[in-house]
Amino acid sequence: MSEIGQVETQFQTIATPEDPFLFRDGAKLDHVEIAYETYGTLNEDGSNAILLFHAFSGSQHAAGTNPGVEKTEFWTPECEPGWWDLFIGPGKALDTDRYFIICANYLGGCYGTTGPASIDPATGKRYGSAFPSVTVQDVVKSQAKLLDVLGVEQLVAVIGPSTGGLSCVTFATLFPERVRLVIPIATGVRTTVLNRIILLEQILAIENDPMFRSGEYYESGAPETGLGLARMISHKTFVHLNAIERRASKDVVQPEDRFSWYRAHDHVESYMLHQGKKFTDRFDANTYLRICEMWSRYDPVIEANARNPLDLFQRSQEAGHQYLVFSIDEDYCFYPEEQAALVEALKEAEVSHLFLTVHSEKGHDSFLLEPDLYTPHIQVMLQNATLD
Amino acid sequence: MSEIGQVETQFQTIATPEDPFLFRDGAKLDHVEIAYETYGTLNEDGSNAILLFHAFSGSQHAAGTNPGVEKTEFWTPECEPGWWDLFIGPGKALDTDRYFIICANYLGGCYGTTGPASIDPATGKRYGSAFPSVTVQDVVKSQAKLLDVLGVEQLVAVIGPSTGGLSCVTFATLFPERVRLVIPIATGVRTTVLNRIILLEQILAIENDPMFRSGEYYESGAPETGLGLARMISHKTFVHLNAIERRASKDVVQPEDRFSWYRAHDHVESYMLHQGKKFTDRFDANTYLRICEMWSRYDPVIEANARNPLDLFQRSQEAGHQYLVFSIDEDYCFYPEEQAALVEALKEAEVSHLFLTVHSEKGHDSFLLEPDLYTPHIQVMLQNATLD
Repeated sequence: MSEIGQVETQFQTIATPEDPFLFRDGAKLDHVEIAYETYGTLNEDGSNAILLFHAFSGSQHAAGTNPGVEKTEFWTPECEPGWWDLFIGPGKALDTDRYFIICANYLGGCYGTTGPASIDPATGKRYGSAFPSVTVQDVVKSQAKLLDVLGVEQLVAVIGPSTGGLSCVTFATLFPERVRLVIPIATGVRTTVLNRIILLEQILAIENDPMFRSGEYYESGAPETGLGLARMISHKTFVHLNAIERRASKDVVQPEDRFSWYRAHDHVESYMLHQGKKFTDRFDANTYLRICEMWSRYDPVIEANARNPLDLFQRSQEAGHQYLVFSIDEDYCFYPEEQAALVEALKEAEVSHLFLTVHSEKGHDSFLLEPDLYTPHIQVMLQNATLD
Repeated sequence: MSEIGQVETQFQTIATPEDPFLFRDGAKLDHVEIAYETYGTLNEDGSNAILLFHAFSGSQHAAGTNPGVEKTEFWTPECEPGWWDLFIGPGKALDTDRYFIICANYLGGCYGTTGPASIDPATGKRYGSAFPSVTVQDVVKSQAKLLDVLGVEQLVAVIGPSTGGLSCVTFATLFPERVRLVIPIATGVRTTVLNRIILLEQILAIENDPMFRSGEYYESGAPETGLGLARMISHKTFVHLNAIERRASKDVVQPEDRFSWYRAHDHVESYMLHQGKKFTDRFDANTYLRICEMWSRYDPVIEANARNPLDLFQRSQEAGHQYLVFSIDEDYCFYPEEQAALVEALKEAEVSHLFLTVHSEKGHDSFLLEPDLYTPHIQVMLQNATLD
């Protein structure tokens, strides 16, 4: 049970026609609003804040229970429990008695932050395909603006599991003076060939759906079969394959309407179809495409306007950052080699760091499900960062 | 260069209204023709024959050059060189001075054997979606009928690389008295969860294409985007990921027409799109779906009407089979664990076998590209099997 109780998403305007948001690729938006939640209390000098970046299909709702969010049509009962509730609360990894935790929906997202499904005030219509490409730099800059408004100059820590780790590392290297402790969990610093191929498959799965209509589907109905297939393609990397087999034999749901043109032959097929179908109710295909592209194009050197990896992490060295890097031994989404590569780069630049590999039979999803594997180290490192 | 020179595909009728072909699932066809090629000369007592099963998207054309095949519209210049030419010819792994090698297109195929794109003589129209589901048992039985006509009672060896290995093992266990040496290469005997998920993704990619029209697309145009995406999904498992990166940076082809709704950001994306596109000219989506389903449903115990794995391989033990099993160390299509599982089952049933793992930087495709890794063992085992 959550000790946090019921929470509410808040909204903050960070761009106006007088002070527009500029994207890395050159686009600009005159209106940007960020949907975010906070847990715990900000102290008087604003020195106890932690910024948490959510993963690919996550949201600002990290802890407690949130029965509904304004300005999004994608909030389903599946969204109500906070995605990192096991890690946030009194006495937990992110202790709400000590720290003020901030989690915001990504720019381009579909849970309240301005994204493709939002209404463009200039036209009174949804952005759709007109919404710009989003980069990790854009996400990080939008959240830095939120911190400005909240009165947080420097963070105790920035934390990012999974794709959130990309933003976490970019925040630390783009704004080195704004953070002390950096905690990337089960993530990578280089988009691998396998990542790029699997992301391309997902992009094409959506684009091939005739309902997609180049992104202009809000009136005519969403590309649900394409989005469902895309989710299936990624889902197999989140969950340990043994776990898929175990889950599949337990909670089989024979899909009916949406995928009825294909009859599943076994439990695994039926389970995967169900995963795909369930997802299409709670996510926007245009947001999905923006995130696929953001991830596929990610290069931490470019995102932080650095010259090379050494230059990038020397910023962390000069700012006195501590890194706490976690790997999951049987992770098929971000392989342990990818965190090892980050650690090599930290070594090269002489950045202080700890590197741990947790053993889990749950695969990539361990970062959501097994707080005992992560909590003690996170607590000690946070305490050290606060004492400094 | 091929020593075999130009070859021609031959055709053999194996089912007529008087003697129809019965599928494992209960369907029947009154007309079945098998497209096949042979290399070398059958000796007088028909005792020097080897049956070779092709892989997923392969054909009967294993050696030499074949500029064109009747009864198929899918023969492109890419099909002209034999797919195992490096392994077939005088002095090669399958020595045409000694052996008579037979390779036939799978039942349900698109290179001349009766399949979904063939004309149903009863209606004068293509079978399309009416073509039955094909199992590995059906493929094996159709080729046993071909051997009957060719006058081959017992084979020296049955060989199957990749998905061809499924048929290879099923042939040996369904007709144990008809073969002496069994050579499965980089294949599996159990369809894994990962296999089934990746196959399901491919099936959905095709079914989601509006051009697919439930398989009735021969008049209206093929589901090329769906088939292209399916091929991309499987292609990444055939080739070592490092090799994809190397190849991608060399032969980049920016795709134009067919996939123009997506702009590739890098060489890897461009390369994968090109692979998908190239494939759609030379393969039929309905055949692709039949093979996906066949592979996904494969269970060697069921295919050979056995009671359990021990019962299955005791047939090989009683028939005195020799197995020569090859693994490729960095194979992402059929993982080395899968061949190890086959070898465990052989041990359990006390079947004579050799098990080798070759080291390759080419991944699964090694079985096509690196004859030096396989040839000596194949030659010695064939010689032993002939002397017996």
